[in-house]
Amino acid sequence: MILIGERINAGFKDIKEAIMNKDGDTIKNWAKIQADAKATYIDVNMGTASKDPATLCWMIEQVQSVTDLPISIDNNKADILKEAIPVCNKPPIVNSTTAEAAKLDLLLPIVAEHGASIIGLSMDEEGSPPNAEKRVENAGKIFEKIMEYGIPPEHLFLDPIVMPLKFKQEQAAAIMEATAQFKFFSDPPCHIVCGLSNISIGAKHKKLINRIFCTMLIANGLDAVILDITDKELVDAILTAELFMNKQIYADSYIEAFGS
Amino acid sequence: MILIGERINAGFKDIKEAIMNKDGDTIKNWAKIQADAKATYIDVNMGTASKDPATLCWMIEQVQSVTDLPISIDNNKADILKEAIPVCNKPPIVNSTTAEAAKLDLLLPIVAEHGASIIGLSMDEEGSPPNAEKRVENAGKIFEKIMEYGIPPEHLFLDPIVMPLKFKQEQAAAIMEATAQFKFFSDPPCHIVCGLSNISIGAKHKKLINRIFCTMLIANGLDAVILDITDKELVDAILTAELFMNKQIYADSYIEAFGS
Repeated sequence: MILIGERINAGFKDIKEAIMNKDGDTIKNWAKIQADAKATYIDVNMGTASKDPATLCWMIEQVQSVTDLPISIDNNKADILKEAIPVCNKPPIVNSTTAEAAKLDLLLPIVAEHGASIIGLSMDEEGSPPNAEKRVENAGKIFEKIMEYGIPPEHLFLDPIVMPLKFKQEQAAAIMEATAQFKFFSDPPCHIVCGLSNISIGAKHKKLINRIFCTMLIANGLDAVILDITDKELVDAILTAELFMNKQIYADSYIEAFGS
Repeated sequence: MILIGERINAGFKDIKEAIMNKDGDTIKNWAKIQADAKATYIDVNMGTASKDPATLCWMIEQVQSVTDLPISIDNNKADILKEAIPVCNKPPIVNSTTAEAAKLDLLLPIVAEHGASIIGLSMDEEGSPPNAEKRVENAGKIFEKIMEYGIPPEHLFLDPIVMPLKFKQEQAAAIMEATAQFKFFSDPPCHIVCGLSNISIGAKHKKLINRIFCTMLIANGLDAVILDITDKELVDAILTAELFMNKQIYADSYIEAFGS
């Protein structure tokens, strides 16, 4: 499973303040915590705290000063990505594009040039998709474009667009069905990712809802997730689900061996 | 979700002793505990403690003296079932038959006569099935026979045969795939059930393994389970998974409202 640590995001107050105050220690600290918890990528998002590419580059540098992990650049502006990607020591994931042709034609050449990966949201200019069919249609558009730009399927992370259980319960089945369908675009397949915490927005039992939905998506083929990597019960659920998907060999101490 | 409480089973030392000593209180106590935990059925199994139909009838009577819940008769002998089923106040589940024709022809007339339900194990005289295809083939044989005997699909509980993760990890995918296929035999479909605790035999993190596999099977269409109903984290996982399957309407207090 590819585990993308979500915590360095200006949506969190401490990160927003760290950006405002050029406080590298807070960012370094969260990079270390997430690396210790065994994240695969560290997501970096400057949100509304800055529009300056130099800010994002500085954040990436802070992370890279304490860990060798690759970066997930949480930004979809071509001019910012053009500056931020070269700062990355390892090929990053660009997080994210929609299925809009104009957007894909702007971002994919940059992704291809740097051997980066990209998260493709299965939504288009009409907004979030109402059903599985529209999700698969949008994902198909993205898949077609990555082929056109010579990006290999393993550099694409398709996202079925997770909607909050509390407000869009009927979407859960569509999200699971779309996830199951995405596997069939190619062999070997592209990755399938989601922003997990959306599922529990406004809910009371957030962590339970997060880990059960994540488990059900893994049963349908999810192999990457943007998550709170410090949520140990969530990570334990993921490690266990992976055994059933035959992605890891069972050992009695599979939880302890992961060492998160 | 149909929750079948597994605890009144002579495989547990206290139940075996209760049978030996005709100690009704231990059986009544476990019936109450499981009813309070919101079981849908109470499974009753006299194991090797007795071969006398009167013993099973006595056990059923103990359970029915403290709860109105229906019984899952955990026995597959026609002569025993013929005596035990009439003792049940409500139509029971017969647990279980295999796909062997001789067995089906012996048990299904009894099930049909009493309006009972039956668990159909997707295994035959050759033993436990090596893959999903064989499971589906065996389930199909059972399905054909229940049609022949005029038993409605909703009285059939197909079981994909859960094998221990520790010893048969490669079977997990086959179990999930078979579960997903069983849905398609009829519309409305039959039930799909499993004996959950088999998955964690010999494993270290039993409860975690149980609840994650149960969640993944629910994602594939499982709607009944033989379980430790007193395992609150397992029940919470099931309640949450059901929301995503759109089987229950979301409410913030869905866990508390179930009241297990």
